[in-house]
Amino acid sequence: MFSKKTYTIRRQQLKTQVGNGLILLLGNEESGMNYRDNVYPFRQDSSFLYFFGLDVPGIHAVIDIDNDREVVFGNELTLDDIVWTGPKEPLADKAAQAGITEVKPLNALEGYLANAVNSGREVHFLPPYRAEHSLQLQEWLHIAPAEASARASVTFIKAIVSLRSYKSEEEVAELEKAVNTSVDMHLEFMRSTRPGMTEREVAGRLQSMAIGRGGDVSYPIILTVNGEILHTHTRDLAMQEGQLGLCDAGAETAMHYCGDLTRTIPVGKHFTTLQKEMYQIVLDAQEAAIAACKPGVLFRDVHALASVKLLEGLKQLGVVKGDPAEAVDQDVHTLFFQCGLGHMMGLDVHDMENLGEQYVGYSDELKKGTAFGWKSLRLGRALEPGFVLTVEPGLYLIPTLIDRWKAGKKHADFIDYEKLESLRDFTGIRIEDNLLITETGHRILGKHLPKTIAEIEALR
Amino acid sequence: MFSKKTYTIRRQQLKTQVGNGLILLLGNEESGMNYRDNVYPFRQDSSFLYFFGLDVPGIHAVIDIDNDREVVFGNELTLDDIVWTGPKEPLADKAAQAGITEVKPLNALEGYLANAVNSGREVHFLPPYRAEHSLQLQEWLHIAPAEASARASVTFIKAIVSLRSYKSEEEVAELEKAVNTSVDMHLEFMRSTRPGMTEREVAGRLQSMAIGRGGDVSYPIILTVNGEILHTHTRDLAMQEGQLGLCDAGAETAMHYCGDLTRTIPVGKHFTTLQKEMYQIVLDAQEAAIAACKPGVLFRDVHALASVKLLEGLKQLGVVKGDPAEAVDQDVHTLFFQCGLGHMMGLDVHDMENLGEQYVGYSDELKKGTAFGWKSLRLGRALEPGFVLTVEPGLYLIPTLIDRWKAGKKHADFIDYEKLESLRDFTGIRIEDNLLITETGHRILGKHLPKTIAEIEALR
Repeated sequence: MFSKKTYTIRRQQLKTQVGNGLILLLGNEESGMNYRDNVYPFRQDSSFLYFFGLDVPGIHAVIDIDNDREVVFGNELTLDDIVWTGPKEPLADKAAQAGITEVKPLNALEGYLANAVNSGREVHFLPPYRAEHSLQLQEWLHIAPAEASARASVTFIKAIVSLRSYKSEEEVAELEKAVNTSVDMHLEFMRSTRPGMTEREVAGRLQSMAIGRGGDVSYPIILTVNGEILHTHTRDLAMQEGQLGLCDAGAETAMHYCGDLTRTIPVGKHFTTLQKEMYQIVLDAQEAAIAACKPGVLFRDVHALASVKLLEGLKQLGVVKGDPAEAVDQDVHTLFFQCGLGHMMGLDVHDMENLGEQYVGYSDELKKGTAFGWKSLRLGRALEPGFVLTVEPGLYLIPTLIDRWKAGKKHADFIDYEKLESLRDFTGIRIEDNLLITETGHRILGKHLPKTIAEIEALR
Repeated sequence: MFSKKTYTIRRQQLKTQVGNGLILLLGNEESGMNYRDNVYPFRQDSSFLYFFGLDVPGIHAVIDIDNDREVVFGNELTLDDIVWTGPKEPLADKAAQAGITEVKPLNALEGYLANAVNSGREVHFLPPYRAEHSLQLQEWLHIAPAEASARASVTFIKAIVSLRSYKSEEEVAELEKAVNTSVDMHLEFMRSTRPGMTEREVAGRLQSMAIGRGGDVSYPIILTVNGEILHTHTRDLAMQEGQLGLCDAGAETAMHYCGDLTRTIPVGKHFTTLQKEMYQIVLDAQEAAIAACKPGVLFRDVHALASVKLLEGLKQLGVVKGDPAEAVDQDVHTLFFQCGLGHMMGLDVHDMENLGEQYVGYSDELKKGTAFGWKSLRLGRALEPGFVLTVEPGLYLIPTLIDRWKAGKKHADFIDYEKLESLRDFTGIRIEDNLLITETGHRILGKHLPKTIAEIEALR
């Protein structure tokens, strides 16, 4: 936990911004896998951690702005519990460390909320992302599950975004710790991957490093020789000489700050000539994008810049024709780069994604795009000092998508479909680093993680 | 997956046993950790796997006994999905491998169920253990979440128990595979644990082995120098020379059959004299219990036998007085052995625990106990060929419990509380193996895993 002062100030700022009413912040519950008591590793809600620091399942919190009360609702262990779970620090003591002096039993929450509702006060809550929260909102506030997201408090959401978007020094230190563990995981990936190993064998090893450092992975590891499948979670293949291995993996610290890095390496000792050419295109795009990151710049424009760089490279290869900038204006790049350049990072690897991407990554003036490619860009707004984000361009050759575009002769003036056939089974490359936006520009977080072709081959 | 015939026969047997009405079997959903798209590793419901073999999130099944229809409800991937997730075998093809020819889109399920309800037919469903299931039962069958468990179909539950309790040859082979991976994890634990390592460092390494073999752990690994804390999930301590390290860890195969083993070792190279004495007591109790396992024997009696053996050993140490069998009759053993001797094991590590322990581990004639100790015995019924179960006695010195008993002078005629003080901080020991009940007795599943003092010290 951070200091009592940190949490107290955060809640004070939240109260000031929300103004009035009662804030209900639901903590997460234990989640059963195949029966109630066989639980997944507990993950507390990130906003709950941000304002209360209590990494304990089954507790909730109320910030009663009108009456200036902050109450944590949860049950202390009984003597019977202690027999099974061992002695633990009482909830009241833990809460005191976050500056909370009022702790009530869980069953007092329903009445507290009912009183507020009955006196016509507004109860601010967040859109639920766990079914348990939907059931609780239904039981305690009589909100139908289908309506809960729409009735969530936009004032509350915006207040959280306005606080959590700016990382304090102590948060940056914690994020850097997460990135450093992630760097070590990737060094292990680069050093130990050999032809014949399965994807999951290496992924398991990396996950054990995150666990060993006191946390866990911040998202399911993507480790694949099919890097073009952006959302792949299967890791069953044996990796073969000549293939590319893409690893997108990050650690979470014990305090739940996240890292998120990607590297793409040859499964054998060397990249092939084509792999080198393609890799260099992505690396050039990534370095140009990173160089452009500074306060005031729209990240949407950095995404466009990276997309132009990718098409410039593909033009050198003869796959793309015409003016790259004009091609990006017409969304030609989305055949090769279907996703976004990056996203905010913090207590969530996609920071605050549960609050809504429009609120986190855009603004009242800047709306998230809806076209293919652009709709996957989670962050578009102007960068500000204190933002922490990923920069992760890639080239992805997706046969299904190529076939569809080719059949429709889509953008045939910009794409040489005949040349493109030779890249059809190339798979994918992504290179990703984590940046802090500073007053004057940016800083790449964490220890250096090799990313040039020479550096990578030296580790293989 | 097993063969089409296997699943077809299982469903046929289920239909015969349930008799009439409509069986609704809800599959599991992806579970978001800190936002919807950052998901825990997917775990399908075990009964769904048993009858349909489909390890896919977001699908459900109906067995319409009255109309002799078996329908899987789920959506095929769209072209857009394929761009993100890669080409996948269509659901209809996968379902065909389980002998299911009727696959309908997910949104057809609600109407199908409404038709059945409107025509007054019974809809059999299971008690929900995931909040998503509570929401679905509410939406589709208008069952209030608080009532869902009570309204679950006992006929359906009993039918499942009568099938899943008896493991077929192919299931035993798969369970043995899980146990063998678990054995390898424990060999690694025994070989690599060293003073100074943290509990989580070793636990992470073992988990990576389960992942590398194509599955994952079958439950969160317990790896602790505080073996007396039965439900501990914290693993933050550095292990020290002189301590005991208890590891309760099991692997799940890719088909989700489980292993569940425990060993207790010295953190240094050797057990202390007292540790040896205590360890031998537990080992003697475990071997006596295993020897007693055969068809027709009540597992409740095996639990009592192991408890007597434990007290006999403690009597040798001078901690217990009087007749051990009489002491067990008076529940004296529950001061040292608070939990159950074992449980059924299969597609769940506590097999079918979501269906209710009374149905799985007991019978209409034999009710689960309610007293301390006995209420934690998950399995009491007579053993039958085909049962797979754990045998896991232990000795746990729980200071909180000792203090409570001592203060109340509980069973002072059987316990020498003064002598007991010397064991107050001993921590705990458990030894656990997995057994198949055969026609004539039992067979310990998997490769040999060292458990004598000499064998263990030889590996340190």
